[in-house]
Amino acid sequence: MENRSSSKTAANVIRVRRGEGSNRPRRDYVVTEEPLEIRLVSGGETRQLAVTMRTPGADFELAAGFLFGEGLMRSRQDIESISYCVDVEDEEQLYNVVNVKLRSALPSDLRSLDRHFVVSSACGVCGKTSIEAIERRGIAKPVGDHPVSIEIITNLSDQLRQAQRLFDVTGGLHAVGLFDSQGQMLAMREDVGRHNAMDKLVGWALMQDKLPLTNCIALVSGRASFELVQKAAVAGIAIFCAISAPSSLAVRMARRFGMTLIGFLRDDQFNLYCGEERVQIDTPSPINEPLK
Amino acid sequence: MENRSSSKTAANVIRVRRGEGSNRPRRDYVVTEEPLEIRLVSGGETRQLAVTMRTPGADFELAAGFLFGEGLMRSRQDIESISYCVDVEDEEQLYNVVNVKLRSALPSDLRSLDRHFVVSSACGVCGKTSIEAIERRGIAKPVGDHPVSIEIITNLSDQLRQAQRLFDVTGGLHAVGLFDSQGQMLAMREDVGRHNAMDKLVGWALMQDKLPLTNCIALVSGRASFELVQKAAVAGIAIFCAISAPSSLAVRMARRFGMTLIGFLRDDQFNLYCGEERVQIDTPSPINEPLK
Repeated sequence: MENRSSSKTAANVIRVRRGEGSNRPRRDYVVTEEPLEIRLVSGGETRQLAVTMRTPGADFELAAGFLFGEGLMRSRQDIESISYCVDVEDEEQLYNVVNVKLRSALPSDLRSLDRHFVVSSACGVCGKTSIEAIERRGIAKPVGDHPVSIEIITNLSDQLRQAQRLFDVTGGLHAVGLFDSQGQMLAMREDVGRHNAMDKLVGWALMQDKLPLTNCIALVSGRASFELVQKAAVAGIAIFCAISAPSSLAVRMARRFGMTLIGFLRDDQFNLYCGEERVQIDTPSPINEPLK
Repeated sequence: MENRSSSKTAANVIRVRRGEGSNRPRRDYVVTEEPLEIRLVSGGETRQLAVTMRTPGADFELAAGFLFGEGLMRSRQDIESISYCVDVEDEEQLYNVVNVKLRSALPSDLRSLDRHFVVSSACGVCGKTSIEAIERRGIAKPVGDHPVSIEIITNLSDQLRQAQRLFDVTGGLHAVGLFDSQGQMLAMREDVGRHNAMDKLVGWALMQDKLPLTNCIALVSGRASFELVQKAAVAGIAIFCAISAPSSLAVRMARRFGMTLIGFLRDDQFNLYCGEERVQIDTPSPINEPLK
């Protein structure tokens, strides 16, 4: 295995097909998955905050986006510096530890992050608590200026696929694309984990001073989980689209925050779960009214 | 939204198709995603160990499989009882908290789980540390008695799909199937998170006193991440298959533990990344030899 700091890693493989004879090993590529440890530094204090299994690349954005999503910083101005920690025991982990130095003191509620050992791809605290925590932080409900046409929305997935050049090489990368309300792609980030791709995107926006992303559309290559919708809500994203299915908590979260949630966005169609006022459709009744 | 303790939740939706006119909301189903808090109880002490976003169902297996994977128990005999905690403040979370009562004292190294706030779908500690930790725990390299035919392997995905009745309803469930060396399905578990589906499966095996699963084949509906291969390795699974792509760390992990790793298992073909001695193929040279 080589290229370990790249998004792809070479690996020998035998392709086996039923009915065929001998197969010689050949060189192929798999998506790189490595741990990234995010450390928060302030004054003389350093705290190990998180370890995420990610695809190397855009690590500083990933760290910034993650910290923003957790409410540990509000803007680029909160960051004094972001750097790789070169003081690691293991040479192999040299680019796998990121120090984020804050201008202010470490938040006093940092301890609360510590209580949970989190096993899931979703956020570290239970759904309800988490929704309430975000409400306490006073995230404005995203607005978005004008309804978006069906054409703009159905064109997004093609754009994401085209931008995702790497996907074809390893088949292992998830992508999140960010678009303006005209459907123009602003940025795209990839990762072995969708939550990391979303953090990278939000981190990019934070470093560019583009938050909140009130008039933006996000599209994820896979499913819409609670965690992804939560990260989008915190970044103020108005319209959240997924190529695949949403979960129940993703729908609940999107409703609560007044977002538009779209699932199964494929070819020329999609499912609209809430926030229909942001899409130019002709509907006789609101989605959330009891059905007759 | 209803049926909250079920694996699917009703949600109104508008199906939008480009070029079509008005669309009336209709009732659909989305996969249920809810937090599950796993608590470890021993003597008078209760410790909140993990919160995972999961699809309700097989919660006790999920708790048992997770704890086994983390090295916090070795067999069913370590468990005094598993029950839902009825002492929750919030009625809505009534079936979202599980107490696992151990016969022995809480492990002294439990604190180490606490150090990390984990953001990923992968395990809570960095890849390398984790591999070493598993090696310290002395997991035997899985063996598996006889090489398995290509036919048996290429038949697995059809079986998994057929067993996955719920997938068609919500499109949001991942599945992990467990098969014997003849390709007979032993069990299947589904969840919004693949890692949970794997934990449920391993938890099932633990409760049935079937661990280690040395002669078994596992098939996951999505990608092979480090975390999934790790959980399979700890359970002693000999052959690990994924419908989609493996990651670099998944390949490394499988090699290290002498497992057979198969990816892109679709129709009548698959990719073999390591452990080729367990598959009846005719290959002129080992996979891991440098290519000429």
